Parts: sequence; structure tokens; C-alpha cells
Amino acid sequence: MVTCSIERAVNLIGEKWKFLIIRDLIEGKKRFSELKRNIDSISQKVLTQNLRSLEENGLLTRTIYPEVPPKVEYELTALGYGLKPVIDALKTWGETYAKN
Amino acid sequence: MVTCSIERAVNLIGEKWKFLIIRDLIEGKKRFSELKRNIDSISQKVLTQNLRSLEENGLLTRTIYPEVPPKVEYELTALGYGLKPVIDALKTWGETYAKN
Repeated sequence: MVTCSIERAVNLIGEKWKFLIIRDLIEGKKRFSELKRNIDSISQKVLTQNLRSLEENGLLTRTIYPEVPPKVEYELTALGYGLKPVIDALKTWGETYAKN
Repeated sequence: MVTCSIERAVNLIGEKWKFLIIRDLIEGKKRFSELKRNIDSISQKVLTQNLRSLEENGLLTRTIYPEVPPKVEYELTALGYGLKPVIDALKTWGETYAKN
């Protein structure tokens, strides 16, 4: 049972960029350009791919506002926001142990 | 600051297989064949690569016992074991939200 739930969890989010995107969106909804700026080292292509994958897995929603140029916002769903304790635990671990 | 510690954390472990390996080793040290059996869908090559990477990053140790055939055991370091709260939070998330 333990195995199942963790495997399910990491199948949905087990990848570096997804953690960084979710961490960023936990603070609130963001536009593509904001995410791109905050996750310094990510390429446009990889960010797009990861956002699409997170959307397909129900962790975030993508809203397009009919403006010129169109405004697109990404926002965590309840499922995505439920990862806050995981992100918090990662943060604590990073702070406590990985000091160099 | 928040950004830094989480980035450091996911740089060290942000990958599906590493979570599954760490989850398995939290229960105690294991031999390669045990890990291979427990992480059902992982290939020998990918398991080897991930164990090596975790060892290089100081999350586990690899001990070779001079037997015939040689016995090799993998065990989490304090750094690796410090990830238990992250694994626990992932487990809770997997159980609570990802029910299908």
C-alpha cells in the first residue's frame, strides 16, 4: 500500500522542473513569463512541456484571457496545492542538510 | 532563500526513480537484487545509474563485502534518511488525492 501511493505520487510529479513550477505556483497564479523568469535555468520549450504535463495530470489549470496579446495564467488545482507539505518538507531538508 | 533550498533539494533528488529508491532504503539497507525486485518497473541499467548518482551526492553508501560472489549493500546516509519527511508527505498526498 505504501508502495502504491508513493509510486502514484512520483508518477505525477517526480521530476525536478515540476517541483520548481509547483513551488512557484503555490504562491499564487502566474503567467508564463513570470514562471520563466522565476525558474531561471529552464528553457521555454521545457517549461511549456512541463506545464502541459501538469495540466494533463490535473495539477494545474491554464486560463486564457481574450486580450491582445492573449493573457495566459497558470494556477494550481486543489490536487496541485495539496503538494504544499511535500514542498515544505523539501525546503526544510534543503535548508538543514544541503548547506554547500 | 526559499528558492535556493528547494532548488538544491530537487537538484539532489528531483527524479522519480530516486524517490522510489530512497523510499525503499528508508526501511533499511538493501542489496541490489532486493531494490530491483521492489522497484518493479526499473531496469538494471537505470537502477545502477541512479544508485551511483545518489552515492555521488552523498545520499547513500555502497558497501562491498568480500565474499564469493561479492555481496553489495546500499544504505542511506543521514542526508538520505533526512528525506523521510518528504517521502511521508508524498505518501500522504498520494493517498489523499490521487485515488484513481
